[in-house]
Amino acid sequence: MSIFRGEKISVEIFGESHSKKIGVNCTGFPKLKIDLEYLNKIMERRKPSKNAYSTSRKEPDEVNFTFGVNNGYIVDDYFSAEIENKNQRSGDYNNLYGKPRPSHADFTSFTKTGNLNFSGGGKFSGRMTAPLCIAGGIAKQYLEEKNIKIYSYVSQVGKVKGTSYLQSEITEEQILSKGENFALSNQVEMEEEIANAKINGDSVGAILECIVYNMPTGVGDGIFDGLESKIANLVYSIPAVKGIEFGSGFNLASMLGSQANDSLYYENGVVKTKTNNSGGINGGISNGMPITLRVAFRPTPSILKEQNTVDLVNKENTTIVIGGRHDSCVGIRAVPVLECAVALAILDETLK
Amino acid sequence: MSIFRGEKISVEIFGESHSKKIGVNCTGFPKLKIDLEYLNKIMERRKPSKNAYSTSRKEPDEVNFTFGVNNGYIVDDYFSAEIENKNQRSGDYNNLYGKPRPSHADFTSFTKTGNLNFSGGGKFSGRMTAPLCIAGGIAKQYLEEKNIKIYSYVSQVGKVKGTSYLQSEITEEQILSKGENFALSNQVEMEEEIANAKINGDSVGAILECIVYNMPTGVGDGIFDGLESKIANLVYSIPAVKGIEFGSGFNLASMLGSQANDSLYYENGVVKTKTNNSGGINGGISNGMPITLRVAFRPTPSILKEQNTVDLVNKENTTIVIGGRHDSCVGIRAVPVLECAVALAILDETLK
Amino acid sequence: MSIFRGEKISVEIFGESHSKKIGVNCTGFPKLKIDLEYLNKIMERRKPSKNAYSTSRKEPDEVNFTFGVNNGYIVDDYFSAEIENKNQRSGDYNNLYGKPRPSHADFTSFTKTGNLNFSGGGKFSGRMTAPLCIAGGIAKQYLEEKNIKIYSYVSQVGKVKGTSYLQSEITEEQILSKGENFALSNQVEMEEEIANAKINGDSVGAILECIVYNMPTGVGDGIFDGLESKIANLVYSIPAVKGIEFGSGFNLASMLGSQANDSLYYENGVVKTKTNNSGGINGGISNGMPITLRVAFRPTPSILKEQNTVDLVNKENTTIVIGGRHDSCVGIRAVPVLECAVALAILDETLK
Amino acid sequence: MSIFRGEKISVEIFGESHSKKIGVNCTGFPKLKIDLEYLNKIMERRKPSKNAYSTSRKEPDEVNFTFGVNNGYIVDDYFSAEIENKNQRSGDYNNLYGKPRPSHADFTSFTKTGNLNFSGGGKFSGRMTAPLCIAGGIAKQYLEEKNIKIYSYVSQVGKVKGTSYLQSEITEEQILSKGENFALSNQVEMEEEIANAKINGDSVGAILECIVYNMPTGVGDGIFDGLESKIANLVYSIPAVKGIEFGSGFNLASMLGSQANDSLYYENGVVKTKTNNSGGINGGISNGMPITLRVAFRPTPSILKEQNTVDLVNKENTTIVIGGRHDSCVGIRAVPVLECAVALAILDETLK
Repeated sequence: MSIFRGEKISVEIFGESHSKKIGVNCTGFPKLKIDLEYLNKIMERRKPSKNAYSTSRKEPDEVNFTFGVNNGYIVDDYFSAEIENKNQRSGDYNNLYGKPRPSHADFTSFTKTGNLNFSGGGKFSGRMTAPLCIAGGIAKQYLEEKNIKIYSYVSQVGKVKGTSYLQSEITEEQILSKGENFALSNQVEMEEEIANAKINGDSVGAILECIVYNMPTGVGDGIFDGLESKIANLVYSIPAVKGIEFGSGFNLASMLGSQANDSLYYENGVVKTKTNNSGGINGGISNGMPITLRVAFRPTPSILKEQNTVDLVNKENTTIVIGGRHDSCVGIRAVPVLECAVALAILDETLK
Repeated sequence: MSIFRGEKISVEIFGESHSKKIGVNCTGFPKLKIDLEYLNKIMERRKPSKNAYSTSRKEPDEVNFTFGVNNGYIVDDYFSAEIENKNQRSGDYNNLYGKPRPSHADFTSFTKTGNLNFSGGGKFSGRMTAPLCIAGGIAKQYLEEKNIKIYSYVSQVGKVKGTSYLQSEITEEQILSKGENFALSNQVEMEEEIANAKINGDSVGAILECIVYNMPTGVGDGIFDGLESKIANLVYSIPAVKGIEFGSGFNLASMLGSQANDSLYYENGVVKTKTNNSGGINGGISNGMPITLRVAFRPTPSILKEQNTVDLVNKENTTIVIGGRHDSCVGIRAVPVLECAVALAILDETLK
Repeated sequence: MSIFRGEKISVEIFGESHSKKIGVNCTGFPKLKIDLEYLNKIMERRKPSKNAYSTSRKEPDEVNFTFGVNNGYIVDDYFSAEIENKNQRSGDYNNLYGKPRPSHADFTSFTKTGNLNFSGGGKFSGRMTAPLCIAGGIAKQYLEEKNIKIYSYVSQVGKVKGTSYLQSEITEEQILSKGENFALSNQVEMEEEIANAKINGDSVGAILECIVYNMPTGVGDGIFDGLESKIANLVYSIPAVKGIEFGSGFNLASMLGSQANDSLYYENGVVKTKTNNSGGINGGISNGMPITLRVAFRPTPSILKEQNTVDLVNKENTTIVIGGRHDSCVGIRAVPVLECAVALAILDETLK
Repeated sequence: MSIFRGEKISVEIFGESHSKKIGVNCTGFPKLKIDLEYLNKIMERRKPSKNAYSTSRKEPDEVNFTFGVNNGYIVDDYFSAEIENKNQRSGDYNNLYGKPRPSHADFTSFTKTGNLNFSGGGKFSGRMTAPLCIAGGIAKQYLEEKNIKIYSYVSQVGKVKGTSYLQSEITEEQILSKGENFALSNQVEMEEEIANAKINGDSVGAILECIVYNMPTGVGDGIFDGLESKIANLVYSIPAVKGIEFGSGFNLASMLGSQANDSLYYENGVVKTKTNNSGGINGGISNGMPITLRVAFRPTPSILKEQNTVDLVNKENTTIVIGGRHDSCVGIRAVPVLECAVALAILDETLK
């Protein structure tokens, strides 16, 4: 079980990639009416689709509230939800016994548990982001009802770059206009990049951006309790994430203070900043500007090409070929997951 | 008070930039003999020096253990340490009343507390990294005695780039050979970059890298309990940090899986990886390779140039000029602080 | 949801007296094979029986492990279990709307929630001790496998007193010889006391004793972390408990130190005490002698006699007659519950 | 270090009976102006006096706020206070090396730590109630400002019984009229009882009662979060406590429900109960009546008579005579300590 114990909410994720069911227990959530259509849409976005860039496995991901929800309403300070794992084909992984897949959690989980049966990623599987999305989706709905809007999109796939907030200010309208696309621009080129990798039995990485609009001021706190700390903590819980930056992030390293500082000014009686290099956060606390962050997703480690690895049973070098069906760009399906992880962080801080 | 409540240790930092004293309470630390010379050297590295790139304020930072340490030994499951704040010149900030310094925590802390007296950063001040270094320095000493070595260095200042682990594998010997320098190469050019900014009343950002050698396997856990989550949580507690990536980080976005995957092989009976794009962590758990991470520090927000800001008392736009003495590149003094923050994260996970 | 967050284990109880199901989530338990026969026997003992002294409601209390248990084995660091509430007859309580039953939680829960629908006790119901027994029963089984044996029995019902450890040392054999009885002596008289109360539409209180044999030394800690604090904390979670004393408890008040002190001596190389007025605990830590404690249970507050109360809707005095079927001596069914509550406290301390 | 981690406040007690200083760290307390006269009076009441029934050691117990208090005001969410231990005469205990004092924590702490140097009780010493009184005294002051009044008094010493709330309702005026006395009646006889024990080198136990007036309704919660659980948890942190009961406590065992139930009625529009057998708490939640509780204190285990014990070094039976100066009835000085422990429990629940 993986537990996020926030200041006000707790989120407990149970199950593994191939257990009969996976799910989430939540405490401290506001007693709202869950918009099931809204939640299912998030679950749907996380699901593999028929596109070139996603796995063809079926994961219906029907959310079953087993406690604390009545007629759609959260009626208890605790609720629990499950998803059945209908497609537990661990047979796909038989040839991997004792042979850890490179850059997966196979070898590292073995060093903790001694388990040599590497099937589907266990609790490290991307599958576990489904229960994360149940909790995070409800958090996101609540925030949206408070007018705090969280959007994510893909700004880079492999070598193909799309629109990024680093180049220009992005409005909510602009994001909404993307419709079902995952990117604000260059969606076709990105899909080609993924298709090319797939054809070669390979995979490709991505950068996702996330913007939180209408963020109230004064959320978060200093040092160990900063908003960046909490968001980073939750975002790094998404498998395949290898980097997170806020505002202008790593670009700030090559800037002068006079360029990087966000000048304050009054607009209709409200304090705003002219630029937003700080990504809406100063000293760990929100300043009222949109919170902006960028997240690096590594390429899916499961590729069809032959790879060098070790045989932990016979203690010798070997090679493996990973079968099964896998996303060629795990970052795509992570778009709603990132929104949900950020929503959980902001919900917990907002309720304080 | 800012509290880091880990699985095994807790670290409580008290005080503010201009309170009479600042300090730290720690529980759960191993009962080692504190190497005061070692600790003082860390405190010394964090202190402003006479170099061009640092503030000329005096901060003697003598560590005074007020409880739980006897003849240098930690004798209790709790210890407390303080530093006197001998130089509380809040007079430097009189002209800032109600006028928040751009990209400081002034405006955001005001939105939380209503306090308009912006003097020295309060608990958001870089000054608060001194007690962090007391706790982290002791953690680092303990890990070093277990042969886990943590090193940090500057790999970029403004436009000047020095040696980075992204280009090549860096050995412990190579790092040690830098001596008192903060960078592995191009130290002079970096100092010039800082001096140029300072001459213009400006400041400049930096990228720091951190490498942990001889990391044991199996440290960390999945989802919310991953090593990246915990390290990121603590590193974002250092003021001015705006980005953190592990291994090849953001570069992974443009890589193929076949390039990014770290092949496993046996070397003298030990499992290693040929590359280390994962930065020593898979699935939130250490794989035995060096842990590598890169951290972006924004330019010091305190610059001598006139800046646009607001007057919160009269609710109008205004300008300010910040006096006082400030680091022109806050990243330089952060080198030991980063080591200490990482040490706390690894100590807590290692003791589990 | 009610959460016990121990040092090593956590126990979360969900549901209410009349919700569709009630249950428990547990983390940190040892990965043992659950002895279902053993557990069901505990659940059976807690259930109302056909005796004069218990309610005639049917509560089958079949334990359904919904997660983390496979073929009877705890396979995860988390498990969840449920009981269906087949007999949710809240109709029994229709006439109580707005009229709190004296000495129930009706009025006090109303002051917290404003809820005037007093049906069956909600989360304050004795019904909620069923999930407590699931968690505690498994804890008790684990401790028993470590040879730590926990027994409880009734030593007083109303005016009828039975054998008490206060008068004499009680051996494990003596307790086992009671068989299905709840008391070590005077069972018949106690049953009559209960039957008499029942005939009069009344109820009666009880004192339960609990003895832990083969307790290892060194379990517990000082001040806030004492074994008495932890046991008391959990025992007061059982509805109707109004007193708890350890060893000679309140009798110690009238004793001299020379009488109360438990002399230490060696027996076959093991340190023991001649008397056990301390109840096996000194300074919050177990001393190796049996842990002994006595617990006062108030009479069941639900009685059939007319009672004075208030009408919270019309804000006037009124009377009520409580229908339904209720235990006439709630202490009897609490025997296994007390064992389970103590088991949870000792398990958590033993795992430290 | 002993840590009470409440819902809203935390209290950390550091030091030992013979360490240079002892003290307390507190978080989450209201930012009140500390009434030092009020606090010192509590500390004074806890101190040994020149009476027959107390130790003649000097313990000046001057409270020194080392952080977070400015001009008497709590100015931070954290404050720390210390007391110097001026009289660390561990020489008094030299002859006890390896020979645990009966019914002290000597043997049990040895089983945890292996320490054979039994000097003054270490962190199990009654001395540690001084820092408890600093935190609890401030809690009590805060509650008093909210009109919640907490009083304790001695109702029994050895065989001598004084006025108890079990016999009659006690008013606040009645308690106040006792002045400097520790009992509401029979003070002289109680003092004689103590003096007699002292003359014989012996000690005697006591029962203390505690009443909380003007308790608001709705404080506390069900099962693991009940007010009785929390109060018991803190009261058992006071050394020498061996029993705690609420309201009519153990007497409830021999009562009928019709006698024990507290009828509700309206008095001037406020719901009250005619009797208060429940001690002001139903279902773990306050009902607005005075909270009443009784606490059993064992006789001081340190007596001057020769006692049987073991020699842990030579593993043989032996005898000891304890020197030094000790309270002959530890319950007397515990009167303010009990008030302070209860205050901490109620403060934490009240702030929720």
